[in-house]
Order: sequence, then C-alpha cells, then structure tokens
Amino acid sequence: MSCAPACFPVNGCPALGVAPSSPASSLLSTMTATRRREAPGTLRKPALSSRGSAHRDKVTPFWSIFDRILCDCFCATRNPGGIVNMGIANNYLMEAELLDFFHRHLELHPSDLTYGTSLFGSTRLFRAFCKHYNSPAFSPIKPVTPDQLLTGPGCGSLLDQVFEHLADAHDGVLIAAPYYNGFEADLSCRSNVECVPVYSDMGDGTEAASFEGATALRGFEATQRAWLEQHPGQQIRAVVVCNPNNPVGRCYTRSALVEYGSFAEKHDLHLVFDEIYALSTFESHSDEQPTQPFISALSIDWAVEAGCHPARLHVLSSASKDFGLNGFRIGTFVSQNNEDLIRAMKATSKLYMVSSPADALFAAIIHDEGFHRDFVATNRARMAQAYDLVTRWCRHHSIGYTPTNAGHFVLVDLERFLPDQVDGHELAQEEREGALWAKALENKVSITPGSNYRHPHTGTFRLTFTLGRPALLEGLSRLEAALALLHWTAPDEVQVEMKGMEGEVPAAGDLEQAQWASMHRRPSISTSLVDAAAATHISAEARSRDSSTDSALSKVLAATEMLKNRPCAC
Amino acid sequence: MSCAPACFPVNGCPALGVAPSSPASSLLSTMTATRRREAPGTLRKPALSSRGSAHRDKVTPFWSIFDRILCDCFCATRNPGGIVNMGIANNYLMEAELLDFFHRHLELHPSDLTYGTSLFGSTRLFRAFCKHYNSPAFSPIKPVTPDQLLTGPGCGSLLDQVFEHLADAHDGVLIAAPYYNGFEADLSCRSNVECVPVYSDMGDGTEAASFEGATALRGFEATQRAWLEQHPGQQIRAVVVCNPNNPVGRCYTRSALVEYGSFAEKHDLHLVFDEIYALSTFESHSDEQPTQPFISALSIDWAVEAGCHPARLHVLSSASKDFGLNGFRIGTFVSQNNEDLIRAMKATSKLYMVSSPADALFAAIIHDEGFHRDFVATNRARMAQAYDLVTRWCRHHSIGYTPTNAGHFVLVDLERFLPDQVDGHELAQEEREGALWAKALENKVSITPGSNYRHPHTGTFRLTFTLGRPALLEGLSRLEAALALLHWTAPDEVQVEMKGMEGEVPAAGDLEQAQWASMHRRPSISTSLVDAAAATHISAEARSRDSSTDSALSKVLAATEMLKNRPCAC
Repeated sequence: MSCAPACFPVNGCPALGVAPSSPASSLLSTMTATRRREAPGTLRKPALSSRGSAHRDKVTPFWSIFDRILCDCFCATRNPGGIVNMGIANNYLMEAELLDFFHRHLELHPSDLTYGTSLFGSTRLFRAFCKHYNSPAFSPIKPVTPDQLLTGPGCGSLLDQVFEHLADAHDGVLIAAPYYNGFEADLSCRSNVECVPVYSDMGDGTEAASFEGATALRGFEATQRAWLEQHPGQQIRAVVVCNPNNPVGRCYTRSALVEYGSFAEKHDLHLVFDEIYALSTFESHSDEQPTQPFISALSIDWAVEAGCHPARLHVLSSASKDFGLNGFRIGTFVSQNNEDLIRAMKATSKLYMVSSPADALFAAIIHDEGFHRDFVATNRARMAQAYDLVTRWCRHHSIGYTPTNAGHFVLVDLERFLPDQVDGHELAQEEREGALWAKALENKVSITPGSNYRHPHTGTFRLTFTLGRPALLEGLSRLEAALALLHWTAPDEVQVEMKGMEGEVPAAGDLEQAQWASMHRRPSISTSLVDAAAATHISAEARSRDSSTDSALSKVLAATEMLKNRPCAC
Repeated sequence: MSCAPACFPVNGCPALGVAPSSPASSLLSTMTATRRREAPGTLRKPALSSRGSAHRDKVTPFWSIFDRILCDCFCATRNPGGIVNMGIANNYLMEAELLDFFHRHLELHPSDLTYGTSLFGSTRLFRAFCKHYNSPAFSPIKPVTPDQLLTGPGCGSLLDQVFEHLADAHDGVLIAAPYYNGFEADLSCRSNVECVPVYSDMGDGTEAASFEGATALRGFEATQRAWLEQHPGQQIRAVVVCNPNNPVGRCYTRSALVEYGSFAEKHDLHLVFDEIYALSTFESHSDEQPTQPFISALSIDWAVEAGCHPARLHVLSSASKDFGLNGFRIGTFVSQNNEDLIRAMKATSKLYMVSSPADALFAAIIHDEGFHRDFVATNRARMAQAYDLVTRWCRHHSIGYTPTNAGHFVLVDLERFLPDQVDGHELAQEEREGALWAKALENKVSITPGSNYRHPHTGTFRLTFTLGRPALLEGLSRLEAALALLHWTAPDEVQVEMKGMEGEVPAAGDLEQAQWASMHRRPSISTSLVDAAAATHISAEARSRDSSTDSALSKVLAATEMLKNRPCAC
C-alpha cells in the first residue's frame, strides 16, 4: 500500500495548518502564514458559539509541538534525528508479536461492515471483555456479564461520558495527587467537571503509605470540605482511583480500596476505578520494587467489606495499555450494580462506537488463549527487563526514583538538574520544570514534568520505559546530554522471546525500523522545536519581564505556559 | 476464531439486561427481572446527575426492539426467521468484494499500535480523505489539504462536536423536512441543539422544486422568524443541508445550493453540508428517475457565486455509506476557510479518535485506484438494479414512491394500508403509522415511518433497497403479507460482477449466509417483539384509554410512543 498522496506534497503537516505550498522548514513561518487569510470583500465572517470559542482558545500553537513529537518519531535506522518519546505511555515492547498476530488473524464478518450485532456495541466485543474480566487477574465476586458493560473509543471517551452522567457541570471529583494528567482533559472537555487534587498530608503521595489502608485517604476529608466551601452550590460527586496508579506505578492494598469504599458511602459519592494497567504489573530483579499485587475493584464485596452500596462502583479498562493498542481505540466501562448508569451510558455511547476491525482483532487475542497467556507473560518479562535497565541508569547517575511494579513509567527526581535562571533572570519554581523539559526536547527526547500530574515535588519527571531497547538506550543517552551527565554503557541483555510464535518475529524496535519509512514521510525538524514555538507564543508575563521574544527566558516562560495546558495526556 | 464466551451462556443479550442465568424466552420476563435487584441493607443507592438522569430516561425498554432488529438479522439459510432490516441505511451490495479486499490488504504499521502519527488524527487517513475529496466527484474549487479536515468515529460523532462549537445550548438549526432522523439525536444528545424542521409551503418537501433554485428555500424565512419569536434569547445558528438527501434520495441543483449560501449570509448562519451519500448516485432503467447529479459544496465559489463568506461552509462525509462501512466508524469534517472551527474541533476530536485498523483498511481502498474505481462503478450498477427491483414491486402493487437517483432508500406511500382503528378504537393520525410499523415488524420486516423524518404526509415509509437480493426479495414478500397483498414474483436478473476481482467472490448476500452462523448465536425471538415491548411500557395515554395492557390498542399506542424517541437513526 502506498501512502503517497495524489494531490498535495507529502510534507504538509495537518496539525500545523501547513498549506501544501508552504515551506515546512519552520513552525514560525507556517503559523504566521495561516493567520494572514482575510475574509473576502465585505462578507461577514461567522462567529463560533461561546463554548466553541472556549474550545478554540485551548488550542494554542504549542499543541503543534506535541503533534511534532508524535509525527517525528525516533527510529534508529530511518529517522535517527527524530524525537524519542519517553513522555507518553505507549508500550512498544510487544509490537512485533502483535503485528504478526494481526496480519494472520483478521476475520471480518458481514456484520462488521454494517451497524453490527447490537444497538449498543458489538456482542463479540462484549463477550471478549467479559472473558477478560472473568479471569484470575480480576477475580470478580460475581461474573461480569454483557449487560453490565459498554464500550467506547478509549477510556478518555468513556470518562467523558461517565462524568456527564455522574456529575453536573462545575461539580468536583476527588483524585489523589499525583494523578494521570489526562483526567482533567477527559472530565472537563465536554462534561465541564472539575478534578480536585487531594494532597496527602504525610508525604508526596508516591510512598507506600499512600496506597495502604486508611492512610491512602488522608487529605480527602479536608480537601472535600475546603472545596465545597469555595464552591457554594456545587457538589463533589465522585472519587476517581487509578489502580495500578499512573504516574506512580504502584497498586493499592485491599484495605486501601475498602477505605475508599467507606469514604464514598459516607459522603454519598460514586467511586470510579481506572484499571487500565491491570495486567501491566511485573516483577523485576530490583530489590527495591514494591510487592503489592493488583487487586481489582471487581473482586471486592463492597457492601460486606466496605459498607458501601455496590451501585457506587464503576470500573474502566481498555485494550490501550495492557495490550499495547492505544491506536485501536477500544475502551470498556463496567458497572455491575447500577442499571441507571448503564442506561445513561447507552444513550450517549451510541455516538462513539468502537470500530469493527479493531474489535475483531482484539477479540481474536482474547479468544486465543495460548497467545493471550504467552503475550501477557512475555510483556511482563520485557517490562521488568526495561524497568531494570532504566533504574540501573538512575542508580548509576544517582538519580532518585519511585520504585514501581506496574505501569509503563517511573517517576524520577531531576530536581538537582533544574535551571535556577536563564539569561540572568531568576526562574520561578514552576518555570524550572518547563526549562528542563524544553532542554530535554532540544536534545530530542520527550519526558513529562511532574507538575503535569500535580506532583507536589518540583523536579519530578515521568519517564516511560516500555520502549524497544534501541529507542530506550537512545532516549537515556539524550537525557544524559540534556542533564550534562557522562554516558553510561548499558550491559548486554538477551531479548525475552515469546513462546508459541510461528516463524521468526523481529525483536521489538527492529520492526519499527523496517516499516517506519512507508509511514513517516514528513521532513525532520530543521529548527528547534522549542525555539520556534516559544517565539510565536510568548506569555504576557514573559513579555513584561523581557521585551525580546527570542530570549532564552521567553522560551522557558512560554514552555511553562504551554505545559499548563498540555494537550497530549497519555 | 471462536466467539463462544468462556463464562456465560451465549444466549445472554447485553442490550436487554439479560443475566446469564435468565431465560431468554421473553423480553417481558427479563425486563421485569432486572428491575427486581434491591439495594442491600441500609446502604444508600447513589443518584446520577440531573443530566445523567435525563439521558437514562431516554433509554426505554423499547430500545430493546431496535437492538433485536440488529441482532436477529435475517439470513436465508442460517436465520430465515430473522428480521429483514429495510429500516436502516446499510448497504450490503458490495460486502463480498469488501471482505475479500480487506482480508488481503491489512497492513498495520507499528504506529498503528500507538497514538499514531499526529495529535489530531492519522496522517494516512487525512491524506486518504484529501485524495477522496480532490477527485472529480467533489471537484473542489481549491484542493482540500490535511489542515482543513479532521476525522472522528462517524458523522454522528462529528455532528455532535460541530454543533457544540457552532451553537450554544438550546440554539436552533434549520433543516428542510423531511430530514434524516439521526440529526436530532446527534445534535441534541450532548450538545443540546434543537433541529428546527422547515416545511415547504408548496409541497411535501420531496418534489423536484424543493431541490431547485429559490424554491428550495421556501419556508425558511418564515420558520426562522416564528422560531425566534417562540424562543426569546436563543439564536438560529446554522442550516444543515443533506445532499444527496436522506430520506428523499434527490440531489440539489447548483442554484439551490447557491440560494442556501445567500440565505446563510443574510442571516449570519453557518451552512453544514452532510454529503455522506456523495458517491451513492446511480442511473436506473426507470423512466421516472430524477437526473440531477450530485454537486458538492466544495465545488462552489461561495463568495463569488452566492455572496457568502466561505468560512460559513462546512462539509461532512464518511466511509459509512459510500463504501458500505458503517461498522468501521470513520467520518470526516472539512472546513476550508474557518481556522477557528478547525481549532475548536481539534480540542474535542482528541476524545473520539478513529481506530487505526479501520483507517488502514479504508486508506487501502482509497489508494488502490483500480479497486476504488471498479468498486464505485459496481456499487452504482447494483444500486440501480436493486432500485429497479423495488420500484417495479411498487408499480406492480400500485404503491406510489418518490423517484430517486441517490441514497440507499426510497420513500413509498403506504397511506392506503394504514389501519383506522384497533379493537374498535379509532386511531389518531400519528398512531396509524405506528400501527403499520408494528404490523410489518410482526411480519419480521423493519421499515421506517415517515414521521420519523418529519415527513408531513402520514403514511409515507422509507424502504432501504441496498440489500442482497435474497434479503430484498424476502423483505418485499413479508411486506406483502403485512399489507395483505398478493405475492409478486420478481423477474430473474444477473448479478453485476465487479471487474478486477481476484478469484471467485460470492454474490452479495451469499457470504452473509455462509458466515452468519459464527457470529449470531442468539436464539430467534419466540414471542412477538411488539407484543412484549408494548406490554412492558404502556403510555399514560394508552392506560387512560384502555385499562388492559395487552390489548391491540395499547400495543399500537406504545409503538407510536416509541417511534417518537427512536434510538436507531441511520
């Protein structure tokens, strides 16, 4: 299949508003160019609605940086100058086996071309998710049945709908900080629900105590009380619990989950569990790794154990993380005891249905028990291997990190590398993370500042380690350059092979190199990403402190501003 | 691949709330059973939000009928007792060729497993749609470029977003009646925008004049004025034009499109074109068929020809209709001169992204120029053949119909078959369509009453004819039974073969029969659909007029009520 377009040069960049004839050499020139279009004659340009204008204003030119991070993806052989993306939670470790499996297992049925086998989603997918949940990994106290779940194009879309139904506009939802940076976008974008971060009063929220028993709930009562006082007329309607936790990489103890249930009952709240990393736990060779296994909310008898009405309990999951299938857009929502919410979800989920080829391919994995078993085991082994590599690197450089046993990432403490000033200007605390983020990106490696996750400790960054070994080593090497560290040479290691694969399957990362060129035809970036973006969008504060739009200070301030409204949360 | 579930009987029906252990013999018993779950002890059941409760209340037990229509699909060999669905716009005519093509052309890339090649959608899909639009079928006055479009999981999802941005809650949008019944659901579900039907003051809106020049706009001024008077503080923000028109099956003349532009400029409105049937035009052997070809809004110089600011113009399309791929969930939105709206759409479209395998398969069609050309031509020839068959049937039975040259359906006049009374009770006008709809469904054929499309003439129904020949003949035969007509024997005809197909491809309909069994494992319906649904959900009006819940009158009234809130609009 050729991806060459018939009608315009391949170097147009849709996200940036690059017209076919525009030179793609600079973000700056293209952004300016798109604004020069004038309305013809005396005709009136129509306005957007109030809410449409608010949506428009969220999309600053800085979003283009995140677009470039995705489209200018590092590949050791085909795009060695591309960006190593350690900033979003993609799991590349099983890509070769997945692609091999999918290319042998596409079996579409006539009903896949039509509206399918049910008004509310695919019966095949409902059954696949039931099988997924009714397994030892989730151990539900009563079997999950198809009438208790709905599907949608990813957890983000499902969260968007769930909070339309659980909360009214401007209501609040409590979440222990640090938390997944996408919750704010998912809950606020259409449904206008506010995430209320709960900071532990005994640590930074990443230590074991924040995932154990009653201490996991410290800060919740006080935060709720304070928020309600500040928001008269509004309600706190729910608590979101991400287990295993993103970005911390820890699992909650059973007693912590039960405490959440008691809190929800006491305050008449819904309890929404994001279990998107349920199968992505691993055991590494690191002595420091936590040992708490994943316990699903489905496995708890909420009425008996927590004195909590089970209609409060809702669980989300997806194919995105545990199966490395972000691009398939398959998410699921389970509520075993709340028919009202299931019905409300039916009303909205018809707008956002799962695509049939993805459904067919994902169901094929679930129903191929041998492949599924070997896939999960191999993925865990490779995650452990990659985690070991990245934590060895941290220890070698005396970089502190939060030990994890789940998720695709690790929180690292880069506080000592934060710049204090730029161009002789002192940086505010929040600007220092932006400055280091920008420095890493100038070295073509993307990492995510902890402030994005409402992490209370400035200087913490989240690093994704579930990259193929070539990309992971390159990313760490570039980070060394950004942090002015001497290069560490990783020990050789043997790729963990997956059992039962037919024929030769390339190692993770190799396939990417081989197939990259047919997909990625945009030119590599010739100007500094951060330079260009910063020069086009300087904050008011930056302008007041520095009249030059291309000073290093301005760039840092602009980068900081952008990070406050980060579009790409994964 | 086996679809047999591991953990529950295959006869569970997700949409109906059928628990695995429940007998599936009757809708009535299962609906009652799910309501008997009681909250344990003294724990409080949590409430939904106000808006969540409103969504919940939309989903009546009657939605289950539409679910059953989808899941109990007729197949001549495997499920001859299933329902022939002539009520929604699925195009089955090319399914064999599509499945054959897809099973040979799945080529996933590593980036298809991840968040992909752009923050706002797949660059491959953007390019495919550009190629689609920059073709003679659309003939844009300037080439469509990737920065001018966004994608989403179907046009419904895109309309939902577009009207979030173009209108505020409770604003209105003008649409010439009769119109596609899904617009109301798409615009109101999340975005709370009201569709305002515009009735022509010179006919029923289906005749040629309603698609030509200034007469196409008759009724718009008066309707807008009246609506604004009735809705102080609200605005009319846009006009939606469906071209080719669903449900009429006609295309607008260039002068009619220009008149729409002038009207939009005069009243400061946006103009949203639904061109989802752009390639689904055909020439039959019928003398009566209209001759107006499809003219895309993209091919008009709005400023010059209509004195209309081109930023008012927006076009939607999808893979669903023209490529027979409803299940793939691929839609696209184009706005060539409104950067504000493109930016606003970027903010919301990230929640609802297109799935990568569908994207890869659809792009493969677009880029295989030989397959694409032959596909479109063969589809048109088969549509013409099916249209001829259904209109011959109409003429044989002296059933009037609105001649069409586009779309998957034809409007037929069944007024003379409408019951006047049931059980000695006179039926109101609106109840008569419901009674005939229920009668057809009792004969296992689904058709759609014109009242669903705001058709002003009671007794009009929309019949989909793009079914494989076995299903189409069976559907017409069942309609004859429902209408008490003598059986008409269709003449033999030769299946139109598609050029360039490798090997033997089964005729449309045959493949469905061969593959049906592995997908559809639910039992066929043992009780009357309408009986069961009506008995569980009787309207207040029905109760006041008749105390028995299982009288024929009650069933008709309940069916009528359901049709007012029809969930399945396609």
